[in-house]
Amino acid sequence: MLKGHQSWVFDSKPVIISSAAVGGPFEAQGNLADDFDILHDNIWLGQDSYEKAEKKLLEQACEKTIQKAGLKKEDIQFFLSGDLMNQIISSSFAARTLGAPFLGIFGACSSAMQGLALGSLLIDSKAAKYVLAGASSHNASAEKQFRYPTEYGSQKPPTAQWTVTGAGTGLLSDKGEGPRVTSATIGKVVDMGLSDPFNMGAAMAPAAVDTIQAHFRDLNIDPSYYDVIATGDLGKLGHTIAGDLLIKHGLKIPREIFTDCGIMIYKKDQPVMAGGSGCGCSATVTYGHFLNRMKRGELKRILVVATGALLSPISYQQKESIPCIAHAVSIEMT
Amino acid sequence: MLKGHQSWVFDSKPVIISSAAVGGPFEAQGNLADDFDILHDNIWLGQDSYEKAEKKLLEQACEKTIQKAGLKKEDIQFFLSGDLMNQIISSSFAARTLGAPFLGIFGACSSAMQGLALGSLLIDSKAAKYVLAGASSHNASAEKQFRYPTEYGSQKPPTAQWTVTGAGTGLLSDKGEGPRVTSATIGKVVDMGLSDPFNMGAAMAPAAVDTIQAHFRDLNIDPSYYDVIATGDLGKLGHTIAGDLLIKHGLKIPREIFTDCGIMIYKKDQPVMAGGSGCGCSATVTYGHFLNRMKRGELKRILVVATGALLSPISYQQKESIPCIAHAVSIEMT
Repeated sequence: MLKGHQSWVFDSKPVIISSAAVGGPFEAQGNLADDFDILHDNIWLGQDSYEKAEKKLLEQACEKTIQKAGLKKEDIQFFLSGDLMNQIISSSFAARTLGAPFLGIFGACSSAMQGLALGSLLIDSKAAKYVLAGASSHNASAEKQFRYPTEYGSQKPPTAQWTVTGAGTGLLSDKGEGPRVTSATIGKVVDMGLSDPFNMGAAMAPAAVDTIQAHFRDLNIDPSYYDVIATGDLGKLGHTIAGDLLIKHGLKIPREIFTDCGIMIYKKDQPVMAGGSGCGCSATVTYGHFLNRMKRGELKRILVVATGALLSPISYQQKESIPCIAHAVSIEMT
Repeated sequence: MLKGHQSWVFDSKPVIISSAAVGGPFEAQGNLADDFDILHDNIWLGQDSYEKAEKKLLEQACEKTIQKAGLKKEDIQFFLSGDLMNQIISSSFAARTLGAPFLGIFGACSSAMQGLALGSLLIDSKAAKYVLAGASSHNASAEKQFRYPTEYGSQKPPTAQWTVTGAGTGLLSDKGEGPRVTSATIGKVVDMGLSDPFNMGAAMAPAAVDTIQAHFRDLNIDPSYYDVIATGDLGKLGHTIAGDLLIKHGLKIPREIFTDCGIMIYKKDQPVMAGGSGCGCSATVTYGHFLNRMKRGELKRILVVATGALLSPISYQQKESIPCIAHAVSIEMT
């Protein structure tokens, strides 16, 4: 199970028997619109607050995933979920609706892969037969909490990123058909002293690099093993920095397989500055786009390296730098 | 491993090879002062913010625990921790100091047992040899975030609870001497519609009852199996409600073994209203007091049922009720 210093190899290869991605109007105009199960044309989702809208995104992703697997809510044994809201209320309130035993997690935008890694551990160790893992974010609820309410229309520098309005969930099982989780690498907190919340990609890049290096070292494989290696939400700037840092450390990932969910999700002409971000970014791109491509036979092995910036508005105000983390999960068609 | 619907039985019985509890001046005047490894006479701990003081509590607990085990920071393979701060900054920043791969968790005041349950799963499934699990809270940082800065001196009703200034951590291993984690029951979110953040004990009591019932049903044992069954931080009011509800559901726990960490930690003449609360409450009472008593041979089997109120100030302002959860962990001298 434990391989090397910080990786887990799942001998039973837990199966993602179904998954779903739910998005908002901006995601509907993006590159990957076809990979969303549900797209909303209004960011409120009929709710009276952005926080409740985010909860709704996650609830819908859970419901859709369970339905696609032909199961019922009662079949879910454990629900693992995290989000960016204070006290992860989107996840906790969705867990209330779902009614399954709940393990709340927090890894900021790395939460989706933290949940998938832990969920796979539960299946692999026979601690569960069905685990639902997920994560969500909402552009307006995140802006309101971390920066300014969107209604203020405040300007942003080109290094800033656009929080994805979306939720992605995957249902893991010990049997069935589908892409399988073969290994995971749990990241350390890496902090290079950056403190600009409008340049998170640059802050998170070293954490992604640290986890990617650990993954290949622990598993004793090289990047050619994968068809795609995708960072979570480094955006254009952070992803370039990560590529450069990897080369500096002697690990060259061919440009054609090295991508970033935050770059992929939106079109070039969408005003997202450096790209997408938020827990919903790697969650929707993985549980929607990547798994769809795997099922169509276009991808056989992928490594998703979700990145998270573990700051809070208070830590920023108190002049702390931004601690970052990245968790990597390997998914394969076997 | 999975037993019944929501419990795990750890066949290898992971060992808590060392643990530590760190507290503040109010805890130093409490009932369990002798069980703290470090007690501070000032709530600032030499820091310039309460948030940094809380981080310091957790860092000291980690350091002390590792030192007591005769190990080094580098030996820790995974660190699991949670707290009440937005974006669990106390845990994330302590993880930065520690340098170990980090899995951030959030279960509000149930975080200590969520971490111990998941950490035991990692050991039992051979995903790790050494796991450090912990949780922290600080009275002034919690008051500032959830209610009012303590400097305002706002009044509180008798149902309110006093957030513990403290951190507790335990080091789990697959071998060694010490109390062993034998099983865990992961709780569901239970919400009976209460919405008063000054009466959390009453809100959390049904969640504790739900998890206690699930534990005995899943493991097919009865309360007499344990020398102590302790809820996390229900306080006087919530604990009485939990006892009454259990009797109503046909599960009578003898009064002499049924207690609550929030009632135990402070003296009767301390002005803590209904009792202690916060992630640091069950964390310090378990990793300090209870484990010390087990090592002295006074207790052979205990069940700690840590309770958490999964609200945020925003969910309260938006008139949501308080979703609650409880995770139970069974610790035995074998």
